[in-house]
Amino acid sequence: MRRAAPRAPHHDGSPAYAGPVGPAGPSLGDRVPLRVRVPHAADGSPGARTVVLRSVRDGEPAVAEATLESSDEGGSWWRAELDVVNPETSYRFLVAGGAGSGSGYAWLNASGVHDRDVTDAGDFRLSTRHRLPDWVPDQVGYQVFPDRFERTEVGVPTPAWAQPAAWDDPVVHRGPDVPYQLYGGTLDGIATRLDHLERLGVTALYLTPVFEAWSNHRYDAASFDHVDPLLGGDAALQRLLDAAHARGLRVVGDLTTNHTGDHHDWFLKAQADPASPERGFYRFRDDGSYESWLGIDSLPKLDHGSAELARRLYDGDASVVARWLRAGLDGWRIDVANMTGRMGADDHAHRVAQALRRTIDAVRPDAWLLAEHGHDASLDLAGPGWHGTMDYSGFTRPVWCWLNGGAPGGPGREHGLNWLGLPVDVPVLRAEQAVATMREVHAAAPWTAWTGSTLHLDSHDTPRFRTVAGGGTDGWVDAAGTGRERHLLGLALQMTLPGVPVVFAGDELGLTAVDGEHARTPMPWGRESEWDGQTLAAYADWVRLRREHTALRRGGLRWLHAEGDVLTFVREHPDGSVLVHVVRPGADTPGAPVRLPAAALQPGLRAATTLAGAPADLRDGVLTLPGEVGAHVYAL
Amino acid sequence: MRRAAPRAPHHDGSPAYAGPVGPAGPSLGDRVPLRVRVPHAADGSPGARTVVLRSVRDGEPAVAEATLESSDEGGSWWRAELDVVNPETSYRFLVAGGAGSGSGYAWLNASGVHDRDVTDAGDFRLSTRHRLPDWVPDQVGYQVFPDRFERTEVGVPTPAWAQPAAWDDPVVHRGPDVPYQLYGGTLDGIATRLDHLERLGVTALYLTPVFEAWSNHRYDAASFDHVDPLLGGDAALQRLLDAAHARGLRVVGDLTTNHTGDHHDWFLKAQADPASPERGFYRFRDDGSYESWLGIDSLPKLDHGSAELARRLYDGDASVVARWLRAGLDGWRIDVANMTGRMGADDHAHRVAQALRRTIDAVRPDAWLLAEHGHDASLDLAGPGWHGTMDYSGFTRPVWCWLNGGAPGGPGREHGLNWLGLPVDVPVLRAEQAVATMREVHAAAPWTAWTGSTLHLDSHDTPRFRTVAGGGTDGWVDAAGTGRERHLLGLALQMTLPGVPVVFAGDELGLTAVDGEHARTPMPWGRESEWDGQTLAAYADWVRLRREHTALRRGGLRWLHAEGDVLTFVREHPDGSVLVHVVRPGADTPGAPVRLPAAALQPGLRAATTLAGAPADLRDGVLTLPGEVGAHVYAL
Repeated sequence: MRRAAPRAPHHDGSPAYAGPVGPAGPSLGDRVPLRVRVPHAADGSPGARTVVLRSVRDGEPAVAEATLESSDEGGSWWRAELDVVNPETSYRFLVAGGAGSGSGYAWLNASGVHDRDVTDAGDFRLSTRHRLPDWVPDQVGYQVFPDRFERTEVGVPTPAWAQPAAWDDPVVHRGPDVPYQLYGGTLDGIATRLDHLERLGVTALYLTPVFEAWSNHRYDAASFDHVDPLLGGDAALQRLLDAAHARGLRVVGDLTTNHTGDHHDWFLKAQADPASPERGFYRFRDDGSYESWLGIDSLPKLDHGSAELARRLYDGDASVVARWLRAGLDGWRIDVANMTGRMGADDHAHRVAQALRRTIDAVRPDAWLLAEHGHDASLDLAGPGWHGTMDYSGFTRPVWCWLNGGAPGGPGREHGLNWLGLPVDVPVLRAEQAVATMREVHAAAPWTAWTGSTLHLDSHDTPRFRTVAGGGTDGWVDAAGTGRERHLLGLALQMTLPGVPVVFAGDELGLTAVDGEHARTPMPWGRESEWDGQTLAAYADWVRLRREHTALRRGGLRWLHAEGDVLTFVREHPDGSVLVHVVRPGADTPGAPVRLPAAALQPGLRAATTLAGAPADLRDGVLTLPGEVGAHVYAL
Repeated sequence: MRRAAPRAPHHDGSPAYAGPVGPAGPSLGDRVPLRVRVPHAADGSPGARTVVLRSVRDGEPAVAEATLESSDEGGSWWRAELDVVNPETSYRFLVAGGAGSGSGYAWLNASGVHDRDVTDAGDFRLSTRHRLPDWVPDQVGYQVFPDRFERTEVGVPTPAWAQPAAWDDPVVHRGPDVPYQLYGGTLDGIATRLDHLERLGVTALYLTPVFEAWSNHRYDAASFDHVDPLLGGDAALQRLLDAAHARGLRVVGDLTTNHTGDHHDWFLKAQADPASPERGFYRFRDDGSYESWLGIDSLPKLDHGSAELARRLYDGDASVVARWLRAGLDGWRIDVANMTGRMGADDHAHRVAQALRRTIDAVRPDAWLLAEHGHDASLDLAGPGWHGTMDYSGFTRPVWCWLNGGAPGGPGREHGLNWLGLPVDVPVLRAEQAVATMREVHAAAPWTAWTGSTLHLDSHDTPRFRTVAGGGTDGWVDAAGTGRERHLLGLALQMTLPGVPVVFAGDELGLTAVDGEHARTPMPWGRESEWDGQTLAAYADWVRLRREHTALRRGGLRWLHAEGDVLTFVREHPDGSVLVHVVRPGADTPGAPVRLPAAALQPGLRAATTLAGAPADLRDGVLTLPGEVGAHVYAL
């Protein structure tokens, strides 16, 4: 029992609804203005007689009546002031007495409007310690798996573990050889292809690990001191950083804090000498065996009870974290952040995140700290540690549920397509289900935690979205374009929702893959005729759209409609708002046009300029959005 | 979009669904069997083809397919084993492939069944550290405010602050004199009235503070070393403990850890001597003023950054906490636990709770540690601190919303009736709303945290429930009985839901009150003819029912039906289950009887023996529950 969305009261942490706060974000002692939009009921009666701000202060609920600030033909604006007493403040609004709202009793929190009492889990959050670097929400990222992007000659002999592959060989994605198939991509190779990134319009390059290792993925670091000579070594990284920065591209690295490889200097010393300082970095059992990541012996787990490990890896000026930021990295993605420091009765996870963040704040205060976290990251995002997470839970999963190729006909487990760890096919859900998940996931962390998180349609750890969307399963371009329509709807969501979109290299060409290992495709340079040109053009268009509209990067998020095959929201910003209306192919499409009350949507709305898709119709106070399949976008 | 409740898959932390575990609860390294009941769809087809246990292990989701253990005419039982790897484990079940379940994709967590992905916030929880004392769930508590229960002569002169009242004087509940009106109740007075408790059938006495103080409520302790001489002093407490224990009654005390009174020894020393150790117990500002509870100067806030305060108050053998447990208290209710140790940038709350619990575990391992917490206590209940909370959020508030007298006609703000801190009338909500709140609140903590919490229809901090239910507002017995019907429905819920029911002294007589101060009524002994005999008899009946049925004390909780005026659930236990069906007076009552599929409810169900209310009808595989107003209870 929720009110029809276009008439639902709304608040979020974006500039139209919260603040202003100082340039460094809210601080203890500040008083932050908060605004709530309460649209009138369908009969024109007020949506609320009373609006109350309820926050938690020193552990106790505090209540303050909001004041009616203004009223217009579509609704009213209410204003309350939040005293920032604690580093983290949880708050919500009671919206009471409105006609047409059932009991006239509703709570507005970050997960929506609820006609009953709720817990604090869905509250809005204000944090004095989160402090996202200001450049982050403006980025569009591009993820590169270095062995698979482009090669150059490095003159380094092939190591014993490696099984060299020709660039056009199929990717080995099952069996024991998976980590050893070496295509020989290099950092200078990436540098030679920066034109491609620039044409695409992306602004940040995210590199999976580049340190010396004994595998193609390099998550089994043998050193944190040197870039892999196979990639061109330290100097090549420096050249790539310089080249990227010269074009205005940011570069984010990837650090394994949960484990090292079993060939790491530290681990070799620890194994050789039980009296060594490094022994305490790992978790050796009495019989000399050791704990490792998910039981994989080549990835011994680090013990974050060790202060010396902290000093060397992440805590302070002499740490690995600090050193490579000084070398020019603009941020770190932390691998397996969700498990880092957690084992059995030990849970050092928050302490590690906070120390890592302190190091960053000291060495390079505008660097970005991004945590890999594949499930519910909310409790890990609450404090002064990670800036954001890879938003698999709040973006990837709900988008897959809404836009997968579906049964019957779509690719499923019989093709090896894994529903991100669950032994069932990816379910086909309705828009209201996908949106409910998105809202619930995002409700439990500060607004800036989600604008500082990354949006992935897929990654090197998942099937390619093109395959999920109904494209092929062979690992190369979906030449028939069978998955294109759904893929590009997913792209539209990725480029219009809050968070930092990250394109996994090759998605823009229409590449397919049934699992994460399969997705580590060598970029098919020189086979341009096979690329899906429509997909590539669409990527450039959507990236440009996002970069051109502040609202798409920094606006709020107000859900307007979610039903079956249709999903509609508006990104609101004082500089102008953008409405996004996505209709998926389905049994009911093209469906009836969606009619929204223009005044409840935005007071004084006089025009909806089409930015993508089909035009909307605005007349007699009603905005009519098209029923045909597509991603339709309008400037308001 | 939830499946009709009687056919919804179910699991909870009770013996029918989880365990067995060892006598001390689950421990690291244990493997705990978990069971899920999946009723067949209405057409008889299986409710699931696959059931998957998803838990979080060292921060990472782990997945294990459940096995089909048995199948019967009503559904199937699935079994999975949970490896206890961490002190707190969060888990839920994927129930997939069932016919008649929409997308065939559903998550079962503690808040219900969801046809989409959910966060971990609603997961079931298993804790190795929570360890509720085994006697707790069997109790029915009785709350006494010592100044107002019964007096005896103590021969102590009236202190200067006090304004003596005659026993039949109305309670002063507004204005500056509220804390000073002294009726003169004593601990020996309570001891003389234990017959009343025994007749009522309650098993545990909860006393609000008894230490020396400068008010009638004694939450402004002037000492933690001595019982107030006005109450009879230390010796009187010992006599009361002995008398209660002799009758098998437990006694729980009340400790203010958030603040003391401004006449407390510690505070006087702190104020007199800035160099004293006690200075660090409080939060003095540079100008000599100090922080206090919600700005009330007579209640200076304690600073839990002080290790010496910890040692004296709660940490270790020499502490106040330990001393009075050794004297015979069976547990502590901790006042304002939600704010204890929390102020500004400081948050010592969990550390204090854990130290307090360590002390209890060392001195009196079976003592009960109950936290006052008026809102969302879930994060404070997760760890090894509090055993439970006063369940205002998950019981009192939803019951009030469902059973208040309602507008128009019912008492509201014009009578001073406060919706527990919110500036609106108590809303009138439907059963599905009340149940959704109960489930959401209880989902976020271990099962034992809720069975170790207390269920209050009201307390010394709230209006009397009789008034909320539509009874009078004058502070004495609702002689007309206008609130009786709803009051006794609330009583039925209090005595049949999980948690420890606590009767606030006088509720059993039909007393009314518009606010917490008003509710501190002197017990009307000697005016027995004015008591509401029907209410008193009902209390004795419901308490007896609870004590007679293990399922009502230790059974699981499975919601069967919640719609408008009707709320139905079953408490399941291997020793026999009890079904509770409550119908409130409403526009639609008496309504249509509720028909439940007997086999989906309980395989082999052959009889439903009426324990209270009207009989049910069981024939042709359908259990038909009455539509008339009342609390109808059946042994299955």
